[in-house]
Amino acid sequence: MIQISLSRRLRRTPFSEGVEAAGVAAYTVYNHMLLATVFRSVEEDYRHLKAAVQVWDVACERQVEIRGPEAAKLVQMLTPRDLRGMMPGQCYYMPIVDETGGMLNDPVVVKLAEDRWWISIADSDLLYWVKGIAHGYRLDVLVDEPDISPLAVQGPRAEDLMAAVFGEGVRAVRFFRFGRFAFQGRDMVIARTGYSKQGGFEIYLEGADLGMPLWNTLIEAGWAMDVRAGCPNLIERIESGLLSYGNDMTDENTPHECGLGRFCDTGTAIGCIGRDALLRVAKEGPVQQIRAIVIPGDPVSPCDRHWPVMAQGRQVGRVSSAAWSPDFGTNVAIGMVRMTHWDPGTEILVETAEGPRPGAVQERFWN
Amino acid sequence: MIQISLSRRLRRTPFSEGVEAAGVAAYTVYNHMLLATVFRSVEEDYRHLKAAVQVWDVACERQVEIRGPEAAKLVQMLTPRDLRGMMPGQCYYMPIVDETGGMLNDPVVVKLAEDRWWISIADSDLLYWVKGIAHGYRLDVLVDEPDISPLAVQGPRAEDLMAAVFGEGVRAVRFFRFGRFAFQGRDMVIARTGYSKQGGFEIYLEGADLGMPLWNTLIEAGWAMDVRAGCPNLIERIESGLLSYGNDMTDENTPHECGLGRFCDTGTAIGCIGRDALLRVAKEGPVQQIRAIVIPGDPVSPCDRHWPVMAQGRQVGRVSSAAWSPDFGTNVAIGMVRMTHWDPGTEILVETAEGPRPGAVQERFWN
Repeated sequence: MIQISLSRRLRRTPFSEGVEAAGVAAYTVYNHMLLATVFRSVEEDYRHLKAAVQVWDVACERQVEIRGPEAAKLVQMLTPRDLRGMMPGQCYYMPIVDETGGMLNDPVVVKLAEDRWWISIADSDLLYWVKGIAHGYRLDVLVDEPDISPLAVQGPRAEDLMAAVFGEGVRAVRFFRFGRFAFQGRDMVIARTGYSKQGGFEIYLEGADLGMPLWNTLIEAGWAMDVRAGCPNLIERIESGLLSYGNDMTDENTPHECGLGRFCDTGTAIGCIGRDALLRVAKEGPVQQIRAIVIPGDPVSPCDRHWPVMAQGRQVGRVSSAAWSPDFGTNVAIGMVRMTHWDPGTEILVETAEGPRPGAVQERFWN
Repeated sequence: MIQISLSRRLRRTPFSEGVEAAGVAAYTVYNHMLLATVFRSVEEDYRHLKAAVQVWDVACERQVEIRGPEAAKLVQMLTPRDLRGMMPGQCYYMPIVDETGGMLNDPVVVKLAEDRWWISIADSDLLYWVKGIAHGYRLDVLVDEPDISPLAVQGPRAEDLMAAVFGEGVRAVRFFRFGRFAFQGRDMVIARTGYSKQGGFEIYLEGADLGMPLWNTLIEAGWAMDVRAGCPNLIERIESGLLSYGNDMTDENTPHECGLGRFCDTGTAIGCIGRDALLRVAKEGPVQQIRAIVIPGDPVSPCDRHWPVMAQGRQVGRVSSAAWSPDFGTNVAIGMVRMTHWDPGTEILVETAEGPRPGAVQERFWN
């Protein structure tokens, strides 16, 4: 197994001490920041996430903050999703596209006020694109990366743990909404969002000083609920069909290819920079698309590069994420498949690390 | 020791097979790509780099390619360095700054032709900034990340190895110039550049198919020169004062703070987006600046976060990179120090991982 070299460039977070004390076994790097990937084992972490509650250091979901009179205009320029109905207090998942409709990021965007937004980014320096656009169009906005570090609480017992720390009011926060709750005298934005389908919240910690107090309070309050330090879990996220930018799609792909066409209101998202290109895609439809793929049989190795998807000796797609699912007793995978082979039930061959393995396109994801 | 979790998001390179076969011990992530940091040990790799020749997979130095009639104009917008005298065939190290003069990257830029440039980037998605600016200003250019993977050959015997593979003509390539040389029938740009002060070249491999053939040819041709797989070496780069973007500086810093004022022609770099802000800095001078710092005594641990630099009980700077130097018998470090304490010989206290250690500001770096 190969080590990770730590350096200041791979930034620590306000919660790193807690992650280390909990015995993190492996890291990845996400937005130039450390992100835990394993504590006990991917499978043990998975079982626990589905049964109890975990605290995740997802400070690597850095925020791009946009403030000013033209903030709303700028956010609409970034995405093909129609934002006219979005109210302060709401969170939207939105594809961010360039002028060709290529995906630059797929964040959750938090609308704090008409003139103040947070873009909670996936793994790319979206700040640079937003700053470049704001500058190039001479928009009346301020764009920067504030000192905000999200901490996620995920799992079936997440709501109980959050209520124990922030009060019963937190139970009233609806899916993809947020409220403000006090912790040690400071207000924090708390949203019912998160990178799992087990339910839960994300706490937007402003400033680093309360990082470890918040972490420790959650861990202590959750003792009777079997709380543990955790992290986004590869198996659970594939079962749930949660895409990972950089793994499952890149700026080569349109939202439509990623199955995100429902977030593209190309008829009404006036101002979106990629709109012209996406209108064309919406008319013609994509020629390849993300699919759930099942690979029966023995567990496959992790997918650290594209695995070609073959049929009749020709490449018809690629798998980008795969894991053995204990709950479903098979390998679950995410892939991009050409339209000739994307119908549910289509049999394909996946060139895994262990050689070609029969698989099939699924109608939907597992969770 | 903590492992790195491999995934498709941490991209492999055309040379990864060679790196693995050579027994890479640790990786970092750089531009969403794997970069080896250690083979035998940092110290053993260091001694070998200074004595022989190494082949480095630096494919993570991704290229931002700019083509079109307004390419030169766009490149000048990105940097305060005056590009009027730059000829095709030249490479320039250039700070890239935003509208406030904050550094977004510090690449080597290759001028292929008046209308075609490569920006060989440090660790940030500079592509997004360049695309945003090009789009916002409606410039007549194409901007993308082509499939180009640099491979470095570094060390005192680098020229001999390069001549053995590419012919004697490669010896005539001057420092920060490039030429075109054939390998297996394909032309490659080869520049006399690299992230060490031991001398050497960088080969810009276009297309991935010749990656392993090129790697293997260099390793085989260098057998008698004791060639090894290597990587940028922490000790050597600190001794040499080679800054690392994300470690030693970020977008918080101006080029002047980084000691890169000599690359800022704010009087003549007409069109540079950050020029107004940097004119102000140039007039007033920075209040903190990068310095070489010596920390005598026992070896310190790697610097994985900022170490405060103290004097008279107050913080006067921070160290961002540090390593034990066998050749100089002391710890060598890079830090940012306030003007009150930046004069050579000033004694300071560095709060290392092992606690406070006396140190001093040096006049210059070691190599």
